[in-house]
This record gives sequence, structure tokens and C-alpha cells, in this order.
Amino acid sequence: MDKAKAVLLIADGLGDRPIKELGNKTPLEAAEKPNLNKLAAEGECGLMDPIAPGIRAGSDTSHLAILGYDPYTYYTGRGPFEAAGIGMDVKKGDVAFRCNFSTVDDNMLITDRRAGRINSGTDQLAAAVNGMKLSNGVEVIFKESVAHRGALILRAPGLGADITDTDPHHEGAKVLTAEPIEPTDVPSSITAAAVNEFVRKSYEILKDHPVNKERIAQGLNPANIILPRGGGIGPNMESFEDEHGLKAACVAETGLINGVARYIGMEITEVPEATGGPDSNLIAMAKAIVERLSEVDFVLCNVKGTDVAGHDDAPQVKIDMVKKLDEMIGYLMANLPANTFLVLTADHSTPCAIKDHSGDPVPIVFWGEGVRTDRCDCFGERCVTSGGLGRIRGIAVMNIITQLMNVQEKFGA
Amino acid sequence: MDKAKAVLLIADGLGDRPIKELGNKTPLEAAEKPNLNKLAAEGECGLMDPIAPGIRAGSDTSHLAILGYDPYTYYTGRGPFEAAGIGMDVKKGDVAFRCNFSTVDDNMLITDRRAGRINSGTDQLAAAVNGMKLSNGVEVIFKESVAHRGALILRAPGLGADITDTDPHHEGAKVLTAEPIEPTDVPSSITAAAVNEFVRKSYEILKDHPVNKERIAQGLNPANIILPRGGGIGPNMESFEDEHGLKAACVAETGLINGVARYIGMEITEVPEATGGPDSNLIAMAKAIVERLSEVDFVLCNVKGTDVAGHDDAPQVKIDMVKKLDEMIGYLMANLPANTFLVLTADHSTPCAIKDHSGDPVPIVFWGEGVRTDRCDCFGERCVTSGGLGRIRGIAVMNIITQLMNVQEKFGA
Repeated sequence: MDKAKAVLLIADGLGDRPIKELGNKTPLEAAEKPNLNKLAAEGECGLMDPIAPGIRAGSDTSHLAILGYDPYTYYTGRGPFEAAGIGMDVKKGDVAFRCNFSTVDDNMLITDRRAGRINSGTDQLAAAVNGMKLSNGVEVIFKESVAHRGALILRAPGLGADITDTDPHHEGAKVLTAEPIEPTDVPSSITAAAVNEFVRKSYEILKDHPVNKERIAQGLNPANIILPRGGGIGPNMESFEDEHGLKAACVAETGLINGVARYIGMEITEVPEATGGPDSNLIAMAKAIVERLSEVDFVLCNVKGTDVAGHDDAPQVKIDMVKKLDEMIGYLMANLPANTFLVLTADHSTPCAIKDHSGDPVPIVFWGEGVRTDRCDCFGERCVTSGGLGRIRGIAVMNIITQLMNVQEKFGA
Repeated sequence: MDKAKAVLLIADGLGDRPIKELGNKTPLEAAEKPNLNKLAAEGECGLMDPIAPGIRAGSDTSHLAILGYDPYTYYTGRGPFEAAGIGMDVKKGDVAFRCNFSTVDDNMLITDRRAGRINSGTDQLAAAVNGMKLSNGVEVIFKESVAHRGALILRAPGLGADITDTDPHHEGAKVLTAEPIEPTDVPSSITAAAVNEFVRKSYEILKDHPVNKERIAQGLNPANIILPRGGGIGPNMESFEDEHGLKAACVAETGLINGVARYIGMEITEVPEATGGPDSNLIAMAKAIVERLSEVDFVLCNVKGTDVAGHDDAPQVKIDMVKKLDEMIGYLMANLPANTFLVLTADHSTPCAIKDHSGDPVPIVFWGEGVRTDRCDCFGERCVTSGGLGRIRGIAVMNIITQLMNVQEKFGA
């Protein structure tokens, strides 16, 4: 028999709640989805709590759990994964932040948190602050991301990450001073001091930078300060291959998911037609998955548009995304190599009514040779409760996959 | 009312996956089993993960969990249970190994890992090495088991068990030197040195032993060395009676299960007609269970033939074993004393397609006065998902039993 392979397809924020205008169906329930239903009919279905029942999961914490890493052990903030997601080499123990280029006046009052949504020249600004010297010897690595975004790594032995943000998250307020959340937390005190020095020096370096002089001349807000937030420590995690014995690639649309994948050593696959929105080309992503399976054992794929539709309270867009997902699943069922397991689920619910993540569980289906096909023949939040899996947690998903693939070491004799 | 009693019957490796040749049924689903179905109809059914969802359990780790002892806390290797299973008195802190009598040449090259499957005289060979003096004062206790097998106990304060094996597991290779897995692990270093000295001295003692001279004269491979493997520390577990308040006996067919039971203080019941294979006399075992219940509160029974059939990829043999199990259950339902709870489950799945343990969950049914009988009326991997239990873990089983029996202490007021 061919060597077993597996695809874990996560439709971001797919889960929802009943919507009156849809006849009290969820978008997933309301959508036409012959292939998803076929997958359910041929597979084993159930409900999944990404973290635990009722917990509102983030995409990062949920992906960690589903990939076999307990987020309560490993997660201290999204910074390390954001930084890894834009190609930065985050090391264990680094403290990493997502950052905004912002505009402040002479009194450190924020006049524009996104510096006029600056979309060029941030590479030059980043180069100007990258490698700056801090008085306590903490190493500074900075890189720009898309638009006004960037990421900062602080590197030194024994840093902590439990500090308050410098970004007040609204305009008209002053830049905040980062402080350790617990005053007695020395490692985080060192980090807070480094962050404050970084922010101050970023202003000194950027305020008269040619890129900003040019912006001011054009009547644009200058990107004259950098505000870090969401700091976290690069967690001490085994690589995915060491953890599960599977060579893996990731096909995803967002930096955060690519960052999680890259941090645990998955190969990142760029799909130019994958936009991260409802207009994304999911068939192109499906083709990339099939292609990558010729070289790796496992592909993680994250489709983002379902989540976007939920955040936008756009049930019809979510229904349309489900239809695209249905075509994608149809393509995969027809084109995956023999002896490949396909697992479809979500990382959390993003109900249109909430416009944000909720703690509602999500449907999951395991499909492939040998699964205990059950009587559930539709893929929806409620109909999967008639499936054979019952209600499982995200942390179990990789164990179920590796045991189906028969590549998991036995515990005991 | 009569004092409550309970029987926990574990059909080893009973769980399976759908098999095409059986019309996509599992052997358990395909077998005629009127008594099992009656048990399910009268009882409360569900799925059980012996350890946790997706975890490939061994028989030893699974039995520990099902008996109420978390294997992640207590399990370091099968050695202590193998040793206890052949009647050795394993104490907490002992490091115990399963061993092979093997044949080596003058260069310590293994020419026969099983010493011609020697089947007599090992008691004399064991007596010759038992009690040997080691230079570091570690006490040596050795006992022969069936055929070429035996078990070794090393006894001294502060030994570790995280060492590599001396047995290369194939012929034509040299005897390996045991080493601590972590070089800085001093307790395991002491054990490794003791093991290496034991192996070397076993050769010195056995090579010219009269039993081996006689074997060589007959053209048989001499059992001239002993190779320990699978070392583990005798865990610091409460006895079953202290843990659960139940005087208990075990009716099982394998040394490993008898060893687990004996280690936690259960009385071992030998049933001569219990062979450990598909030809075993399960009615004789059922009779032994009923008999033991006149003296004890609880009987653990393990039937091995279902697992053997799975390892052999013999679906029809597994079906036949289910039929025998069905007769056994019929006997028990008719003959158990009043107010006895009967719990039927498996310690893991051993799918014929895998020929080894898998991480698929197993069916479980609780039967007896007061259980919440549900609408599930058949005992199979998939139909029990309609039962009232949902999906539980092995570690919960004894708690459910003792609360049904009303002998569990209340937690709180």
C-alpha cells in the first residue's frame, strides 16, 4: 500500500450560529454543499472544541492545539508567530511583537495609529531602526510587513513577555509606557525597559527620515514612531516533524497561520491566487496541496474567507465561501493521492451575529481508508452530532490522524 | 440487598475498523452476538478511549488506566509487570526487565536470540545466575518464564530505568552495551552498569553450565547468555484494595495482565483451560469468575484471543472469538450473583488491517441494577455511539463502577 499521507484543511471561523434570515440555519447549514456532504457520508463526523468547551479560541491558539501543542503550555502572545509569518527567524526565548508604524506629534500624542496607512518606504524605515543599540544590550531585530505593519524581536538571555502595551489602541492618546504586569517580574521589567527605549529611539530615528520628510511634503502623515504590542516569548516547542514524525508543508493565506507553521518547521507554500479574502482561489490552493503531497507526508491548509465573512456579519458571503470550499473539497477528493486521509474542520466559530470568534464548537470529519464511517451524511454544526466521533478536543486531532496513518508510536506494550 | 459486586471483562484488542470483505463491518459488528446485544440493550453504552482520543495504547498502559492508575504517572516500562506476572515479588523502586536466553559466539555475536527456543532446563540456568554478586552491590533476582523467556529484577536504592537495551533485536549483531539515555542521569547510569555486568557474568556462568553442555552435545544452540530489555521501575502505586476499597481477583490469560493485577495486589486465578489463544475455554473462565465472586468484591478478566486474531489479520477468527465471548457473556448474565455489575469493554483496538494496536476508541457497556439503560441495543464500535455514555476515558471506568456499586467516598459534602 502507498505510504499514508494526510491533509488537514481548516476553514477559518467556519462555525456559526442559527441566523433568523436563513430560516434559523447557519451559513454552513444553509449552503449547497454536495461534496462536503459526501465527505461526511463517507467519513467519521463529530464536534470539536478547539481548546475546550466554551473557550473562545484565537486562530493561533487553536492552530497550536489542533497541531498537537497545548496552547496553555506554549502560548504567551501572537508576536512570535506574526514575526515568523513575515519570514523572521524567531528563536526560542526571543520576545517578539507585532508593531504599527504610527504618527505622533511632538508631545507623543498619537494622531494616526496607522501613519496614513503608509504603503511604501517602510522597508527603508525598518532598515533604519533594525539593529539599533539599546543600553541594556538587548538585540533589536525589526522588519516591515504589509502597509503600516511590522514585527520586532528583542533578543537577550532571560527576557520576559508579561508587559503592558505601548499602543493605547486609539488616537488622541499619548504613547503608553510599557510596564511589567507584575512589578516583581524582573525578566519582564527588562523587556519593558527595552521596549520603551526602542519606542523612544524609533521616534528619534524616524522623525527626520527622508521617507517621512517626503511624506510630509506630500501632505501625508509621517510614520515617525513604532508601537509594539502583543508581545510573546518564542515557545520551546518541538518541531512538527519531531513531534509527529511527519514532514509537513503549509498552504495558508495569513501571516499568523504561516507563522505558526513556520515556527514548527513546516515548509511554507505561497499560492499567488490565495488572497485571504472571499475572492480567494481555493482551487489553486487545492492544486498546491496535491502538488506538495508529492514531497511531504502532511499538508496543513487554512482558508481564511469564511472567517472574514463572519467578522463582516455577511451571511451570504459566508454561504458563498462554503460553496467555494465545497468545490475545493470535491477537487481534493478526486485528486488526492491514494491512501491519503483528509480532515476538514474549523479553528473556531466566527458567528455573523458576533462579528468575532465565539466559543461554539465546530464540525469535524475524518475521511480515508479504514475510518469508521458513521450514519452522519451532512457536514454542519448540528448534523455532525449524529456522527461517531462524539465531541473531541483540538489537542486530539493530530493523535487521531497519526493513528489512522499508523505512524504513531505505541504507548506501552 | 446483597452486597454489590462487579466484573470488569476486557476483550483484549476487540475494537477494529470496517473491513471490506465483511461488507464494511468490523468483526464485532459482523458476528452474531445475541447476548452481547442483550447486554447492550439492558445496559448503558458508549465509546471509550483507553488513554485519550487517538492514543495507541499498550495492554499494560491501558489496563493501568482502566483500573484507575494514570499510566503517564506510573508507567516506565513493561518489565515490572512481566516480572510480577511470573510470580516474582517486584517491590517499589525495583528495576525489572523482561529477558531472553540467547546464544552468542565467543565474540558476543548473537547467533540465536531465542537459544533454539529452549524449553527445558531454564530453571537450572536461572538458579545459576539468580543472586549473583555485582560489584556495585545491586541485588540480582532472576527467574525463568516460558520457553526462552525470563525476568530480571535489579534491587538497590535509587536506581533509574531510562537505559538503552542490550538486545539488538536481531541476529548477527553484537550484544549491545546498556547506556543511560541521558548521560547526566546518574540513577540510570548505575542501572546500566549493573545490567552490563549482569549480561557479562551470565555468559561466564552459563557458557559451561551442564544444561548447555548437554544441549551442545545434542546439536542444540546453548542458552549461554541472558539479554534484558524493556526495563521499568516498580511504580509507587496504591494497592487496588486501598485505591478502590474492593477486594479483587484477576482471571487472565497472559503474564503481562496477571503481572499488572498482581502488582496492585489482586489475587491471581489460574484457569488451566485458558490458553491465551482463540482456542481458549471462555466458559471455564466465566465459571472461575463466578466462583471467585463468592470471596471477592471485584473480578478483572482479560480474554486474549480477540487481540491475537487482530495481530494475525484473521477477521474470521476474530468473529469466532466474538461468538465465544457472546456465550461467555450469556453464561455470566445467567449466573452472576444478584447485585453484580458487569462491564464489558476492550483495552484497545487491534484492527486486522493494522495487525497491531491502533488508537481507535472501543465500545463499553455498564450493566446491572440501576444503570441508566439507553436506547442502544447492540454492542459494536459504531452502534454504541447512540448510547447514553457518550465518549469516556479509561481512567473514568473504575470511578463509574464504584459509584454504581455505591462504595465510593464522596468528594465534598
